[in-house]
Amino acid sequence: MSPRAHDDFCALTTPEARADLADRQLAALAERETVVRAFAACDTETARRGIAEHPPGPLSGALIGVKDIIATEAFPTRYGSSNPAVVGPRVDAWCVAEARRLGGTILGKTVCTELAYPLPGPTTNPHDPTRTPGGSSSGSAAAVAAGFVSFALGTQTAGSTIRPASYCGITGFKPSYGLLHLEGVQAISTTCDHIGIFAQSPRDAWYFSSAMTASQAEILLPRRPTRVLRLRLPPEIPRTDGYSDRAEALVESLRQAGVAVRTMDLPFPLEDFSGLQQALCYWEAARILLAPGGQHLVPELRALLGPYLEIDLSVYADARRRRQAYQARFEALATGYDAVLQPAATGIAPPIASTGDAVMSRFWTALHVPAITVPIWHSVEGMPLGLQLLGRIGEDRALAEVAEWFYRLT
Amino acid sequence: MSPRAHDDFCALTTPEARADLADRQLAALAERETVVRAFAACDTETARRGIAEHPPGPLSGALIGVKDIIATEAFPTRYGSSNPAVVGPRVDAWCVAEARRLGGTILGKTVCTELAYPLPGPTTNPHDPTRTPGGSSSGSAAAVAAGFVSFALGTQTAGSTIRPASYCGITGFKPSYGLLHLEGVQAISTTCDHIGIFAQSPRDAWYFSSAMTASQAEILLPRRPTRVLRLRLPPEIPRTDGYSDRAEALVESLRQAGVAVRTMDLPFPLEDFSGLQQALCYWEAARILLAPGGQHLVPELRALLGPYLEIDLSVYADARRRRQAYQARFEALATGYDAVLQPAATGIAPPIASTGDAVMSRFWTALHVPAITVPIWHSVEGMPLGLQLLGRIGEDRALAEVAEWFYRLT
Repeated sequence: MSPRAHDDFCALTTPEARADLADRQLAALAERETVVRAFAACDTETARRGIAEHPPGPLSGALIGVKDIIATEAFPTRYGSSNPAVVGPRVDAWCVAEARRLGGTILGKTVCTELAYPLPGPTTNPHDPTRTPGGSSSGSAAAVAAGFVSFALGTQTAGSTIRPASYCGITGFKPSYGLLHLEGVQAISTTCDHIGIFAQSPRDAWYFSSAMTASQAEILLPRRPTRVLRLRLPPEIPRTDGYSDRAEALVESLRQAGVAVRTMDLPFPLEDFSGLQQALCYWEAARILLAPGGQHLVPELRALLGPYLEIDLSVYADARRRRQAYQARFEALATGYDAVLQPAATGIAPPIASTGDAVMSRFWTALHVPAITVPIWHSVEGMPLGLQLLGRIGEDRALAEVAEWFYRLT
Repeated sequence: MSPRAHDDFCALTTPEARADLADRQLAALAERETVVRAFAACDTETARRGIAEHPPGPLSGALIGVKDIIATEAFPTRYGSSNPAVVGPRVDAWCVAEARRLGGTILGKTVCTELAYPLPGPTTNPHDPTRTPGGSSSGSAAAVAAGFVSFALGTQTAGSTIRPASYCGITGFKPSYGLLHLEGVQAISTTCDHIGIFAQSPRDAWYFSSAMTASQAEILLPRRPTRVLRLRLPPEIPRTDGYSDRAEALVESLRQAGVAVRTMDLPFPLEDFSGLQQALCYWEAARILLAPGGQHLVPELRALLGPYLEIDLSVYADARRRRQAYQARFEALATGYDAVLQPAATGIAPPIASTGDAVMSRFWTALHVPAITVPIWHSVEGMPLGLQLLGRIGEDRALAEVAEWFYRLT
C-alpha cells in the first residue's frame, strides 16, 4: 500500500472519472475487506446504484464511510458495541445528511471501538494485518487507506482521527471545535468531541469539509509556509520508530527550502499535556454515559468512568480554567506561524492487541485547535508515520493549505 | 404575583409536603393557564399519578416543565413551529432523562418561540397578561413564575434564560458551557447553545442542576460576597424602568453591608458586546438550520440566516479568536471577585408584541461563563427587574451561593 494509492477525488471532474474511481474502490473492497474488516455494515449494491444516479453536488460520485457512532438512516448504528440490543436511531446525523445533500454516497458504517474506549475492534491496518489501524475511528481510517472509499467520517475526543490517520498513512483532519455540527453523533464529552475527516490528501479533506461549512467545496492550492514552530517534547513523551530523526531531517530540509523553523520546548506542563484532556473528558463522559441508557457500556468503561462521578465540580472547574489559559497561550504562541509541527503519533501502528497511544493529540483536542495528519514518512519496516500540523482556532483553511504543501513535498 | 409565591422545593423534605406543593401547583395551573398559556402540551392526570407514586430521588415530587425544543418521550416536540408536520423524536433528551431518573415528574412541554427566533408565542407574563414573559424560553419562565411547576428546563443561545427570568421575577440559571449535556435539544449554534434552568430561588436552581452534575443534589447556603465587580455599560446599551437607579442603590447598600464594590467601565468593545454572539451564532445556525430538514423554518429566520452561508470562514474565525481573547480577559477581570454584576435585561417585560432585547446576555453567553438572574427589584408598575450575576467558567456553585445571598437580601 502506497499512501498515494488513490487519486484525489477533488481532481476528478467528470462523472465518468468518478464512476471509474468508485468501481476501483468497490473492487478493492471485494478483494481486501475480508482481511481489513473496515466495515461494520456496508451495502455495495445500493452504493453502486447511488453512484450511477449521478446525484448533483460536489460529492457526486464519492463513496463515503461513516464511523459507527454516527447515526445513519440506511444502516443501523451499533456504537462498536458487542451487545446486539444496542442500536441507535435510524436517522441521518447532520454530517451524514450534509454529505448526502452534497451528492455523496454512503457505502457503509465503519468499525469503531466501543464508544471510543480503546478496546480494539476487528479492523486491521491495511499496511500490515498484524497491526492496528488505530482507534477509535479504526474502520474509517482503514477504509480510506485500503482504497475502499474517498472519504470517511470519524470523530476525535482524544486522538481518534489524528492517530489512526498516521498509522494508516492517510490524511486525518480534525477541524476547529464547533466547525462541524455533532448532532447525531454519540456524545462522549461536552467540550472535547469533534468530527474528524479521513481522506487521501489535505486538499481532499478540505474539499469535503469546506463543502459542509462554506457555500461551495473548495479546491485549495498548496501553500509554502514562511515560518513554522516546532514544539520539542520532553523525554517522558514516547517517540519511537525514528520519529525524532525524521523530525530533525524535516527541519533541515525545511530550512533548505527557505522556511524559517523555530524550535522551542513544549511550553505547557507535562502533567496537563498528558492528562488535561482526560480530566475534562472523563468527568463529562461519566455524566453523559453513566446516565440512563448507558447500561450497555463495557465493564472496563464503566469502571473507568465511575469514579469521575464523585469528582467535585471545583476540580473540573480548575481543569476548565487551565484549558482556557492554555488556549490563550497557544493562540499567542502560534500567531505569526503558518503551522505548529508535532508528531501525529508516538510511532508506527502497534500490534493489533492495542489501538495505540493518543498522547500526541489529547492536549490539542482539549484546546479545540484544528489539527491535521499529513502522511509524509515511513519507518524502516515501511509503516507510515504522520506529521501533525496544528493551527489557531478557525484557521482551518490556512492550515490545510500548508498541510497540502507538506503532502506534495514528499 | 409575588416572586416568593412558592416554597423552595429543596426545603420540602417530606413526601407529603411535596405532594401538597404539587397539588397547589396543579390548582394554579387549572386556574390561570388559560391566561398564562405557558404550556404547548401538558398532562395533569399523568403528572398527578407520577407524583403519587413517590419515585425515589432528590426530585421526587417535583413538577417540571420542558421547553418545546427539548425532546421528550411522553410529549411531541414541536419546536414552537406553527407547521403541524414538524415533530421531533419521541425520546427523552439527556436532561429530561436525568430529571426523571432523579425522581422528577414532567408536567408538559412549555411554549418556545420558533427555534429561538424572537417571534412571540402565545404565552403571557404572569405578572401582567399584556406583557411578554420574554423568550425564547417563554413558557418555561412563565410556568415557574405562575406557580405551575417548581422547575423548568429551557435553553440559552443568546439571552433566552436570563432575560425571561428577569421579566417573570424568578431565578434563571445558565450554567457554564458544557456543564449540562445538550443531547436531544434542537441545536442552533455549535458554540453558543446552553441548557438553562428556571426555579424560584438560586438554591432551588442549584439543587436541580447539581443533581445532574454531582453525585447528589446539593442544598447550598447563601454566601455573603466579599468583593463584587460592577461593569458600567456605555450609554448606547439601553436601560429603562429605573435599572440604573436601583443599581446605584444596590451598590450603596452593599457597601453598607461591608461588601467591597469595584465599578469599572465595560472593558470590551461595544460592537462586540452587542454583536459578537450574533456573528458566531448566526454563522453556525445557518449551517445547522438551513441543512436538509430545516425547510420548516419561518421565512423571517430563513431570511436572517441565509446571508451567513456566504460569510467566509475567515470572518467567523476572527470572531472565534476575539471570543477567545475576551474569555481570557474576563477570566483575569473576574478573578478575586465573588461575582460580576450586570442588569439581567434592559428593563421590565415589554408589551406582548415583542420578546424583548437580549443584549444584556448575548456577550456573556458567547463567553461561556455561568450567569444567573436573581429577582430582587420591581419597577414602579410592580413589574420584576432582575440582577444578573456572572462568574468564571466552572465556578457555578460559588456563583449560586452568592446569588442566594442576594436573593435572601431583599
